[in-house]
Amino acid sequence: MKITFLGTSSGTPSRTRNVSCIALQLVQQGVLWLFDCGEGTQHQIMQSPLRLSQLEKVFFTHMHGDHLFGIIGLLASRSLQGGGTSPVTLYGPPALEKYVLCTLETSSTGLAYPLHVQPIADSLVYEDDNLQVECRLLKHRINSWGYAVIEKDQPGHFEVEKAMALGIPAGPLYGKLKNGESIILPDGRTIHGADLVGPTRPGRKIVYCSDTIYTPNAVELAANADVLIHEATYLHQDESLAIRGKHSTAAMAARVAQEAKVKTLILTHFSPRYEADARTSMGEMLAEAQTIFPNTFLARDFWSYEVQRN
Amino acid sequence: MKITFLGTSSGTPSRTRNVSCIALQLVQQGVLWLFDCGEGTQHQIMQSPLRLSQLEKVFFTHMHGDHLFGIIGLLASRSLQGGGTSPVTLYGPPALEKYVLCTLETSSTGLAYPLHVQPIADSLVYEDDNLQVECRLLKHRINSWGYAVIEKDQPGHFEVEKAMALGIPAGPLYGKLKNGESIILPDGRTIHGADLVGPTRPGRKIVYCSDTIYTPNAVELAANADVLIHEATYLHQDESLAIRGKHSTAAMAARVAQEAKVKTLILTHFSPRYEADARTSMGEMLAEAQTIFPNTFLARDFWSYEVQRN
Repeated sequence: MKITFLGTSSGTPSRTRNVSCIALQLVQQGVLWLFDCGEGTQHQIMQSPLRLSQLEKVFFTHMHGDHLFGIIGLLASRSLQGGGTSPVTLYGPPALEKYVLCTLETSSTGLAYPLHVQPIADSLVYEDDNLQVECRLLKHRINSWGYAVIEKDQPGHFEVEKAMALGIPAGPLYGKLKNGESIILPDGRTIHGADLVGPTRPGRKIVYCSDTIYTPNAVELAANADVLIHEATYLHQDESLAIRGKHSTAAMAARVAQEAKVKTLILTHFSPRYEADARTSMGEMLAEAQTIFPNTFLARDFWSYEVQRN
Repeated sequence: MKITFLGTSSGTPSRTRNVSCIALQLVQQGVLWLFDCGEGTQHQIMQSPLRLSQLEKVFFTHMHGDHLFGIIGLLASRSLQGGGTSPVTLYGPPALEKYVLCTLETSSTGLAYPLHVQPIADSLVYEDDNLQVECRLLKHRINSWGYAVIEKDQPGHFEVEKAMALGIPAGPLYGKLKNGESIILPDGRTIHGADLVGPTRPGRKIVYCSDTIYTPNAVELAANADVLIHEATYLHQDESLAIRGKHSTAAMAARVAQEAKVKTLILTHFSPRYEADARTSMGEMLAEAQTIFPNTFLARDFWSYEVQRN
């Protein structure tokens, strides 16, 4: 599972940061998911190693334009040039469907693949054999949802060398043992699968909270996550702006990380105001969060973070 | 009058060309007009010397996304950060209003300045003391309009040196003579304004035709223009694609320029297919047009062209 930040600015693009989008590559499945899709996301993808043809799902946190206005152009380009023919599903607030239908219709945009729009109706947004996606309502000026991508626990590794040392012939018996079954060997020995399979490997958990001011719902959603990506529009010194716009300071984001006991915090969605004096203010942003939660990183456009298996 | 190309690719952005937008700076009036506004136009403006605060009008040729999807993000950014407080008017096909209202509403976008949407209802789109904007229906898969910006004729220069040589005292008399009036000097001589004012200076005319296949309406609209900006999506060798998509080849655009007796032709809206072999194919594009109309240029992103006074 590899995260790539495609837009890390809040509100408007800056000279070095585009508006919000996060890509999640599910390497094993060979698919690409996006979280939010600000204007210019297709341009960012074109400048990255990501491929639009692999796009399978886009999850929208809320309906503000800096998280939304890139979607129709991206879908159209996937159809025209991106080589995509597989279906794409969009998940988001109820108004998403109206936005998508209206823009497709008024612009006479036809797509070469099926498009589904799935309004968020429940905390469980999506589930398959390997993953589930959950959401929680956060606290912003309009309804805004955080998302958790939760990998299901994986069976432990089968200890091939131990099996060979026991003289078990390679082949179908290995499959049975991997599944936890017991077998009787021709020489009469009984072998229990459980003895040859390592401990269950817990799945990974990635959580994305944006836009929001500090809320216990974010803590609940992010509980024990491997990675929490949290907006940090402002520095604590500008907390009054954060409260007015219902955004977070770096300190608020770090508090969520600390209370949720996550492993890693990545901050994003920075106000362009701090770029004017990029070294100082962005350094302050990191220092402010690390005082509360040391294992914090600042996202930047095109930065990738590989979420290691537990 | 200064033209700056902000997007010169057709359909989808390429690595070097964004989707359609042309900026027209009315230097004398201190305002900025745009023609079409593809996704990422605000990003292009940010990388240029143009200022969103000066934006006054945006004219849309048609409703395809590569000419349209940048407008709401641009308007929102003008409000949030661009320092714009003066009104903006959008001109375009009837469906433009629905697109604008629906996207503003579903994204809860508020603007800090008045926004007007003016559907094209007549060939005369706009007129003030200095300029008029006309349109003609072109020939595309959906309704698409060409625009002509026509500067009104300017009075000739007042020949100050000649007036001084005649011993006319500087002051209010100069104003009367400039207006073509006749005056009687204290010494009894009668001076006619017409003798001291040079010939009327014809206004400039800039025409933009995109998207369209060859059509006599474009010739009519572009008649005697100083500059014709015409789409040239394809090379003649791909004419079948041009006919299918109702786009122009470079040869078709040059034919319009020739028949309309324009002074200068600028081609834009190139299919990204020709970029793969940029030097050869784009060279072919220019050569193909110049065979028919020698004074042809190829637009590229961020290229500016100053339209000199006649």
